[in-house]
Amino acid sequence: MNNPFFRFSEQYVTIIDQTELPLKEKYIELNSIDSFFNAIKTLKVRGAPAIGVTAGFAIALNTDASGIEAARVSVKANCEYIASARPTAVNLFYVLDLMKACADEYTGTNPDELKQRLYSCATDIMNSEMERCLKIAEHGLPLLKKEMRILTHCNTGMLATPGIGTALGIVFHAHASGKSPFVWVPETRPLLQGSRLTAFELSHHGIKYKLITDNMRGTVMKNGKTDIVITGADRIAANGDTANKIGTYESAVLAREHNVPFYIAAPLSTFDLNTESGDDIIIEERPAEEVRAFRNCQSAPSCDVYNPAFDITPASMITGIITEQGIVKPERECIRELFS
Amino acid sequence: MNNPFFRFSEQYVTIIDQTELPLKEKYIELNSIDSFFNAIKTLKVRGAPAIGVTAGFAIALNTDASGIEAARVSVKANCEYIASARPTAVNLFYVLDLMKACADEYTGTNPDELKQRLYSCATDIMNSEMERCLKIAEHGLPLLKKEMRILTHCNTGMLATPGIGTALGIVFHAHASGKSPFVWVPETRPLLQGSRLTAFELSHHGIKYKLITDNMRGTVMKNGKTDIVITGADRIAANGDTANKIGTYESAVLAREHNVPFYIAAPLSTFDLNTESGDDIIIEERPAEEVRAFRNCQSAPSCDVYNPAFDITPASMITGIITEQGIVKPERECIRELFS
Repeated sequence: MNNPFFRFSEQYVTIIDQTELPLKEKYIELNSIDSFFNAIKTLKVRGAPAIGVTAGFAIALNTDASGIEAARVSVKANCEYIASARPTAVNLFYVLDLMKACADEYTGTNPDELKQRLYSCATDIMNSEMERCLKIAEHGLPLLKKEMRILTHCNTGMLATPGIGTALGIVFHAHASGKSPFVWVPETRPLLQGSRLTAFELSHHGIKYKLITDNMRGTVMKNGKTDIVITGADRIAANGDTANKIGTYESAVLAREHNVPFYIAAPLSTFDLNTESGDDIIIEERPAEEVRAFRNCQSAPSCDVYNPAFDITPASMITGIITEQGIVKPERECIRELFS
Repeated sequence: MNNPFFRFSEQYVTIIDQTELPLKEKYIELNSIDSFFNAIKTLKVRGAPAIGVTAGFAIALNTDASGIEAARVSVKANCEYIASARPTAVNLFYVLDLMKACADEYTGTNPDELKQRLYSCATDIMNSEMERCLKIAEHGLPLLKKEMRILTHCNTGMLATPGIGTALGIVFHAHASGKSPFVWVPETRPLLQGSRLTAFELSHHGIKYKLITDNMRGTVMKNGKTDIVITGADRIAANGDTANKIGTYESAVLAREHNVPFYIAAPLSTFDLNTESGDDIIIEERPAEEVRAFRNCQSAPSCDVYNPAFDITPASMITGIITEQGIVKPERECIRELFS
């Protein structure tokens, strides 16, 4: 399974513009630091691992090779700039730290060589994210029995990672293994990553699914039509509390109410051991217009809006976290062991 | 407080076309039986009490006065036709039964007189619905302390009833009483009655509110920002199980999780003692296109959809039902007493 939505070279990163899906499959080339910043800021590229990998190439491709000092200054400035595009996804900061470390480790004086090293570093990050996706899918596969009905949230597939995805990667793997999974796809307001992206990806792969609005999740669980919930994560705190797309917490509450197991699928790069618990995670609030409109259709009068992009699911509601190193219990000790 | 959105005469019923809100305040005149059927079917008029009252006038205005037999035949045929417009709202059937009973009780032979009686009956039904709204608001008022934050769902105000509303009527009454209520308004996908209608009504009255997407309800409860949930009902079974707009059940689960009281506000005409429990309520499934798009904005590829219009909230999750006769416990005995 290849991911057709990302392509990388030393000149350009080519991505599918996710804001145009599912109506148009439009590819755009990113090269200038502004083009990368805007693509991340406006969600043309989204999903924590995809944002991280894209940010790595943003730094590599925009390193000023006119002199070694200019190169170092540009890496620092570009990292700060790109870090300001989205405040919540820890992968972004993680990758930018790796890129800065790569520049710091270079003791030579050849700016072209430094730029080449940064490009290699970005490529390594991409390759290891792809590898992680595969391993997550392998570890998650045994959870999916034949013809299981999976409730997911938002988009966590090939549009969210440079590989096969996290939560959705498990579904792709189950499908390829002949397990005939069925997916409940909540549309995921306000930006509709479920209906626009997840539905698009599942159609693309010929996987059975039904689209629902976010407020139908309780009903499909109450009616006994959901066997497991698997979502992605934007940041996982040291105690297992998980920030993910708004509405994830509700899926967790509803899953517990209906005795449905609730799993998070995420690479280790999503864990932030410096964040003690969910209380310490800053939640990005996005523009009111996203809620007052549905795509380009105005749906509300001019009014006040609350628009948090993420919510926090307490560790106590999470059955397990599926990582590239196996399924971990959402407990401080177990998480610490992963990194030891 | 007058309801500016409904006007009735012996020639026409004039309603605001709710499908055009909040962008256009367009009034339409209903006269032919087809115009009434289509207005109910396509949600130009919606909300259980408003549908019921509109149906009453549909019968009265379309009684064939060319002869007494023709009149009786037209009442019967029109009642069957209008009853087929929406399957879930019990008020519709309740009003149609009243109209049929009115025709049956008339023993004279003057078709004009019968038609006049039917019009009086429809007017009485409207007046008593308005009266019920006021009484519901009076009984609900003590639940709202000063500056309370109310989470509602869908639309239950002057666009849903011929009076001041049910759940929202209580808010209007609290506002008029100087209690400064604040309302969380979930947009209520797929048809966005929250953002299009409830936000419009609250703006119109100068009541403080914030619009959220349906999947933010858990977060505003978890953050301690909700004091009470009050929603309407489309049908209440003999045991207190309540059918209401899809997503209501989720609000009930989330309210219980966060120790927030959960109330239903509905007139007695919403109770259906012939329905033993929620299991016996047929849930209307609506067209897939409502979920794949909003208005003309497509958000999903062509795909399978599950689109139940309502869900069932078990009586055990309901703190109380606010009726025109007071607040009743959602228990079979207490409900039966209401009707004795």
